[in-house]
Formats: sequence, structure tokens, C-alpha cells
Amino acid sequence: MKRVYLDNGATSYPKAPGVAEAMSDYILNNGANVGRGAYESSFLAENIVYETRELIAEMFNSNKSENVVFTKNVTESLNVLIKGVLEAGDHAIVSSMEHNAVMRPLNALSKKDISFSKVKCSNLGELDPDDIRGFIKPNTKAVIMTHASNVCGTILDIETVGRICKEYGLIFIIDTAQTAGFLEIDINRLNADAIAFTGHKGLLGPQGLGGFVVTESLAKSIDTFIEGGTGSLSDQEIQPEYMPDKLEAGTINIPGIYGLNAALKFVRDTGTETIRAGEIDLVERFLTGLKEIDLIHVIGRDDIKNRTGVVSIDVPTRDNADISYKLYSEYGIATRCGMHCAPSAHQTLGTFPKGTVRFSFSHFNTIEDVDYALGALNKILY
Amino acid sequence: MKRVYLDNGATSYPKAPGVAEAMSDYILNNGANVGRGAYESSFLAENIVYETRELIAEMFNSNKSENVVFTKNVTESLNVLIKGVLEAGDHAIVSSMEHNAVMRPLNALSKKDISFSKVKCSNLGELDPDDIRGFIKPNTKAVIMTHASNVCGTILDIETVGRICKEYGLIFIIDTAQTAGFLEIDINRLNADAIAFTGHKGLLGPQGLGGFVVTESLAKSIDTFIEGGTGSLSDQEIQPEYMPDKLEAGTINIPGIYGLNAALKFVRDTGTETIRAGEIDLVERFLTGLKEIDLIHVIGRDDIKNRTGVVSIDVPTRDNADISYKLYSEYGIATRCGMHCAPSAHQTLGTFPKGTVRFSFSHFNTIEDVDYALGALNKILY
Repeated sequence: MKRVYLDNGATSYPKAPGVAEAMSDYILNNGANVGRGAYESSFLAENIVYETRELIAEMFNSNKSENVVFTKNVTESLNVLIKGVLEAGDHAIVSSMEHNAVMRPLNALSKKDISFSKVKCSNLGELDPDDIRGFIKPNTKAVIMTHASNVCGTILDIETVGRICKEYGLIFIIDTAQTAGFLEIDINRLNADAIAFTGHKGLLGPQGLGGFVVTESLAKSIDTFIEGGTGSLSDQEIQPEYMPDKLEAGTINIPGIYGLNAALKFVRDTGTETIRAGEIDLVERFLTGLKEIDLIHVIGRDDIKNRTGVVSIDVPTRDNADISYKLYSEYGIATRCGMHCAPSAHQTLGTFPKGTVRFSFSHFNTIEDVDYALGALNKILY
Repeated sequence: MKRVYLDNGATSYPKAPGVAEAMSDYILNNGANVGRGAYESSFLAENIVYETRELIAEMFNSNKSENVVFTKNVTESLNVLIKGVLEAGDHAIVSSMEHNAVMRPLNALSKKDISFSKVKCSNLGELDPDDIRGFIKPNTKAVIMTHASNVCGTILDIETVGRICKEYGLIFIIDTAQTAGFLEIDINRLNADAIAFTGHKGLLGPQGLGGFVVTESLAKSIDTFIEGGTGSLSDQEIQPEYMPDKLEAGTINIPGIYGLNAALKFVRDTGTETIRAGEIDLVERFLTGLKEIDLIHVIGRDDIKNRTGVVSIDVPTRDNADISYKLYSEYGIATRCGMHCAPSAHQTLGTFPKGTVRFSFSHFNTIEDVDYALGALNKILY
């Protein structure tokens, strides 16, 4: 059977050319740790790690690659940032479109005298940034917000949010899990203090590697989250104060960094504008086709304005899980059905607790994939 | 120039046969996430993740593979365990041979009204377990201890420590960074509550993946550390209470798990006894040779009793960093010089702050490697 992968919102597949080869080549022909051994293979690996920090810094327009920290995934990144910033007595603001990678840490912190407010978005997933103002309290310290919904693909106006954060002196943390590699993200222009990213979605790298970039100011003020060996200040039993060592303890995922390095070069050389334009063409064709299937309700915006390559649908008269199952079992189309780890977003969009069938496109999908998915939906529903 | 890698205490090289191929094959031919998509590639990946949990459970004699949690490295594992167990007012006990992956988290916790005592080991790195008794206080909650020193290779008598922990009702957390894959480690026989491991040293897998195994009792009582999406209970904004989801949030390192899976099968099929016997033969030959070089002082035990494949030396009349540098630049021998992220161990062994030159052998080293290293040392020193 034909296989069409439309679950790129979960993880992209295929990965960028050269990712598997870079990882395999490192494991077979280098294998050394970085920052801890004075031999050639260690220096070579160190160079790749440094270059990858530089590529990430360049992508988010940070001028200090030492403020790029690698983690295992964007969930860890958000935990490090949220828990390193918020202290007992503090208050934070989020949107109602957040993923559980933001909501679950905040709920855990609520036991430690840290509170948060959720700014409600429209039933298209859109935020009115000015609504944030009404939630700002004397103890509000940070705004943590997704750049785009992982459920319906709506992009939030984080540029205006950033200006409001600057106006009130709030720390601004952006979750770019759904946008890095697809949109230009400039830490300075957005007035952001931290950009959390994952390597395995739009950046087209392997799972097992995420990270974040922080401003110099946040690098100084943030508390450590995971402490341990850094290969630096090894005569001391306390974490170094300088970056990235302050926030990067233990052996890092070097094969993953080799893979991400290859992926970042592919994304840079292809250009996020080209990647976005191609994906938006696919989404436009898909949305146009969906409008002709009257049983289907598109969740969120049904046009290409302010959206990513993620499209969720609901079929009110049918079991969405059954549709997702048939798309795969009868047509080989991989989608994802359910809550997508974002119950609050589904409540906002009116799809809680039923959930949606989510289609998510990548740079490597084609017009044929779109038409095949539309054809399959037509045959399953009628 | 010939190349001899003797820095396996930092990370093993080469990796087990099949590790690079398994990772590359996953990236190229599967690529899917687990627990989040209802399609074949996702189920296939899920099976490998499950099988890898089973292999780890079997290795540490746990009968519940859901109590195996994957992390990015053993440093994260130790942070999750230490910070999930200790609360304000608690006291912990460690040995004086601990790595900074234990000491730095404990020092960070000391700001939060959590205290610890360090039981001094002998200048051979040996612990008298009965010395622990004198440090037990009414608020002592846990003993956290390395299984073997990463500096001198001395194995600590954790079996007796486990019996003392049981006697006093203390939680016992073991750091097996230097012993997993080399020694039999039985969570039940050791009366341990948690075994922290790394995948890239004695287990011969890739960097980027570590983990831990906990008992059913600790799984219930431990607090969460990183919260986020789990692909489970996705209608709820709080972390699930069941394992492994309770302690495993966000997308896991699936290529790393494919690599570790191949490595664990190699270790299982080869047998840790065979691996240990081979390494100990190399260490014995190396120690015998070192005794004939009178400028060299072997740190810790100079025989094969209670030791791993790690050997540290000091040359009192010379700069150890220069020796390590010459071993590589003139003979292609990779070693590691310095503190090895364990300042307290060096204080115990009398090598602080000068540090040592560390040689660490793996299953893949040979008698020729040992003789070549001894020859190189002789030529460099005389």
C-alpha cells in the first residue's frame, strides 16, 4: 500500500538529507565526548557542537552562541525555563492554546505558591494580545506562550505580546515547537527573553534533541535546574555560573547534535521562506478540498492567514478516531487523532473532549499527497 | 599514527556492533514517534522502546519494565531521583567518592533547607559501610552512592550499604555510571530503591540516553521533576500518576533507544561476566607494567580486587597534563587528565588539586593496547 506521512506536527518524516549519515558517521568514526578529553576526535566533535550552537544562534538571531543550551526535548527546555524563572509568590500568564509541556509544569508549580492566568483565545485559536493587560498583576513575572497551536495551526501574535511584555518588564518565553524552521523567529525583534525549540519537527533533525536560547540578561538571572559535571570548574562542587555550562550538565547528545547540524544546514540552505511557501501551498490546496466535503468541519482558521502546516478537522456525525484509523488502514495515511496533549486548546476550539483528526504537512509532502488524502476522506465519509 | 582509545570512562568507543546501523535505519526507514500515532511505523517504534525497557529491567532484575524511565543522561537521572525524593528539612548521606552529578545537585538543594553528610572513604577509595551509621539522623531520608569511582575504579561495598539502608528504612539510590554492563547489578539483592544508569559507557550505546529503574514503592512516592505531554491522559493538564509517564514527559530519544537496544543485546549475549573478565585481564597486565615504572604512582588500589577498568596515575615529579598530552600527540593514545568532575574523590585520594592521568579500558581494548600504553609511558618518562 502507498504510505503518506501527514503527522509532521508530532515529528517530521523524512528527516533532512544527511541526518542519518551524520549520526552514523559520528558513532562509527568518532565517538568521543566533548570538553573532557584532549585528543583529536574530541576536538572534532567539539567543533561540530560549537558550529551547531552557532547555527541555532543564527536562526534565532542571538549574537551569543554560548547562550544556546541543548536539552533532550522542548518539554525539558520549557521546564528549565519556567522553573528557573518562577519563584514562590510569582504569577505567570499563558494563552489558552498551550501544550501540556507548558500547562503541566505550571500546574505542578501551583503547589509551590506559583500561580498563573490563562488568556482565552477565540474559537479560531486567535489571541488578542491586549487581553493580556487585564491579567497583569504586581507579582506577574513572565508570559509563556506558544508561537502557534499544535492543534489547529493558528499563529499567535507574539510580536505584539513581546511589546506588551517589554512595556511591563515581564520575562517573555516562547515555545516554538510548531514554528522553528517554518517562520522567521528573531529573539530581539520579538522582545523575547527565551526561545524554546525542538530539533525533530520543523528543524527536520532527530528526536532526542531540543534546546533553548536565552538573552544575556536571562542567562544571568535564571536559576539552574539540572546540575552535574560540565568538564569545567571541575575542582568545584557547585555549578559554574557561565553559559552554557550553567544550564547544561552531563554528557550531551552528541550523535543527536551531529544529526541536527546536518538538518540545520539543510533548513538554512533551503530557506525558511521557501519551506513556508511550499507548505502553505499544500495547506491551501487541502483547505480548498476540505471545503467541498460538507461533512467535515475545519477547526480554527479555514484559510491560509496566520497559520502553519497543521490542519485539524472534526466530523460531527462520525467517530474521528475511526476516520484516522481508516485513513491509515485503508489508505496508508498517517495522521493523529485525539487531544494532541493540549486539552485547553481543544476547550478553546470547542473540540473538547472529542478531539480532532490532525493532518500536518512538511517540506517533503507533495500536491499528490494532498490530493490522495482528500480522495481518501471522500471515500471514507461517503 | 596508531590510535588507541583509553578514555572509556568518559564514553566507550567503539560502540557495540549494530548501534550506528540501528539508529540510522530508524531515522531513514521509520522516523515515527511512539504512543502518539495509530500507524504501523509508530507501533514498530513502540515495540523497540518496550523491548529496550524490558532489556534494562532484566539487566537490573526489576520485574516491572514500566518502572524503567529514559532520560538524556545519568546526570538527569540523578537529578530526577535526588530532587524527587528529598524535600525541605531532609538529610542525605553520600560517600566522598561521588561525581559532581551527585554533589552539584545536593549543593544546589542545600539552599532549600536540604542537608547532606559525606562519609569519608580511605585513600584507596574504599568505603567502610559501617561508617554510614554515625551519620544517620532522625531526618535522614536517603543514601546516594556511586557503585564505583570514576577516578580510580574502586568498587564500593554497596551490598552492605543496602543492608544498612534497609535496617534504617532509608531510600537507597545507586549511581552505576561506571559499572552497568561491567558488574551484575540486582536492584533487589542490593536493597536499592533506584538504579541510575547511562547508556553510553559500559552499556556501549550512544550518548544522549540514560535512565533509571525504581522500585514500585519509590515510583509511588517520588515527586515529578519534568512535566509535559505524555500522549496519555491528554484531556488533563496534570502529569499522570502511573509509570513511566509520571517521570517521562515529551518526545523521547527514539534513535538513541534503537541504538541502546542493539547495544544491550550485545552486552546480554556477550555476558557481563565475560566483559568483566576480559577488562580485568587488561587492567592486571597494565597494573603489573605500571609497577615497573618507578616514577609512576598508581592512585587507589594497585591490584585487581574490587575494581573496574579505570586506572588513574600520578607522576609526582611531572605535569600530568603534559603526560596525557604527549600520550596523544606522540603515540595516539587518548586518556583523560584532570579532576574527572569528582573533586571530592581527588581530595579523598590525595590527588587534589593536581588531578591524575586516567586510563580506562573497555571490552574492545586488547593486550597490544595495554603494552603500547606502557611502552609509551616508559618512553615519555625516561
